[in-house]
Amino acid sequence: MTSTTLTERTKVKRLPARGAYDRETIYSILDEAFICHVGYVLDGQPYVIPTGYARIGDDLYIHGSSASRMLRNLTQGVDVCVTVTLIDGLVLARSAFHHSVNYRSVVILGKAELVEDPSEKDKALEAFTNHIIPGRWPEIRWPNELELKATSVLKLPIEEASAKIRVGDPKDDEEDYSMNVWAGVLPLELKPGTPQPDARLAHNTSIPEYVTKYKRRKDDI
Amino acid sequence: MTSTTLTERTKVKRLPARGAYDRETIYSILDEAFICHVGYVLDGQPYVIPTGYARIGDDLYIHGSSASRMLRNLTQGVDVCVTVTLIDGLVLARSAFHHSVNYRSVVILGKAELVEDPSEKDKALEAFTNHIIPGRWPEIRWPNELELKATSVLKLPIEEASAKIRVGDPKDDEEDYSMNVWAGVLPLELKPGTPQPDARLAHNTSIPEYVTKYKRRKDDI
Repeated sequence: MTSTTLTERTKVKRLPARGAYDRETIYSILDEAFICHVGYVLDGQPYVIPTGYARIGDDLYIHGSSASRMLRNLTQGVDVCVTVTLIDGLVLARSAFHHSVNYRSVVILGKAELVEDPSEKDKALEAFTNHIIPGRWPEIRWPNELELKATSVLKLPIEEASAKIRVGDPKDDEEDYSMNVWAGVLPLELKPGTPQPDARLAHNTSIPEYVTKYKRRKDDI
Repeated sequence: MTSTTLTERTKVKRLPARGAYDRETIYSILDEAFICHVGYVLDGQPYVIPTGYARIGDDLYIHGSSASRMLRNLTQGVDVCVTVTLIDGLVLARSAFHHSVNYRSVVILGKAELVEDPSEKDKALEAFTNHIIPGRWPEIRWPNELELKATSVLKLPIEEASAKIRVGDPKDDEEDYSMNVWAGVLPLELKPGTPQPDARLAHNTSIPEYVTKYKRRKDDI
């Protein structure tokens, strides 16, 4: 797979061994998570807003409605930073200093543009649903024209992007390894609980397998 | 409990019923999560970086090392937006348009300042560990002077802040309620897996209860 464009702005400078720039790594993180944090600037002030997204090929589509402030006076694209973070575990070292978190994150810089073409917007909305819960799209009512108009979608090319990953055991100072304290990793994962049927759901409606077997992580990592 | 300062910048404008401004709500979200997304501006470009944090009273302390770019040339504070997001579930409506995510998020705007006082920095480091994993601090080796110097800590007063929360069932259009499709909420929670002992751990080291019984969420929500 190809790599993204490595620039001074996306190069991982602190602990460079944790940086990754290949699309396969970046896309596997983007595909597992489903909430991103979009950063933009308004009157010199940074704002960071959580919102949904989906990837189609080498483009990231962002659900714009939650970030509507960002869209004010938008005419030809807005500089954004989209960051996606997966938390994989607590790294419990013997010293406070070496405590850490196992994580996988992606940072994408670029100009987000409003998607105006209705058919592209339509595809993005389908991708949002497929990204959050694969298998559901065929069963639900699709967006009508009014709903399509009410939804803002932004498109960001995945060009200037990097991933940052920490995995594995704590790295303690040599002299601390003899300490009598438990050390290791406590894995963490966003896991589903018991599905809660809507209060107005008909009693005989069965729960689809894509709900009961829902899982974000593809394999054991 | 008191409220934060409500400004035009932190007021929840879209779906205002989801906004909250009391410190109790804001702090319960800050205390459950442990990774924030810090937004800052450099040469006009927004950056969003995931990092650890802790709250002491009405101040948020941010682990600065991961955001070291932000600290370049920092002399008297930097405008930041710190956003904390908890994902609580998928809201599966009958229509694509009304699909949503149950979440609790906090946005704090303000000037982050470098903590220079060693004793304040010390307290912040203790708070970081206590925030990530309560109970561990007394057992581990505390930071020495060199480590204290190598760690940057930023302080952000929790003044201009707001929470945004979505809870409960999907809200479908009246005519869609008769559809024969399962609807409801699939709860999601960041849950611990089986603790993985460090490869160099002595065999007889027992796992503390604060690891085996680890849980971020205080009560059922």
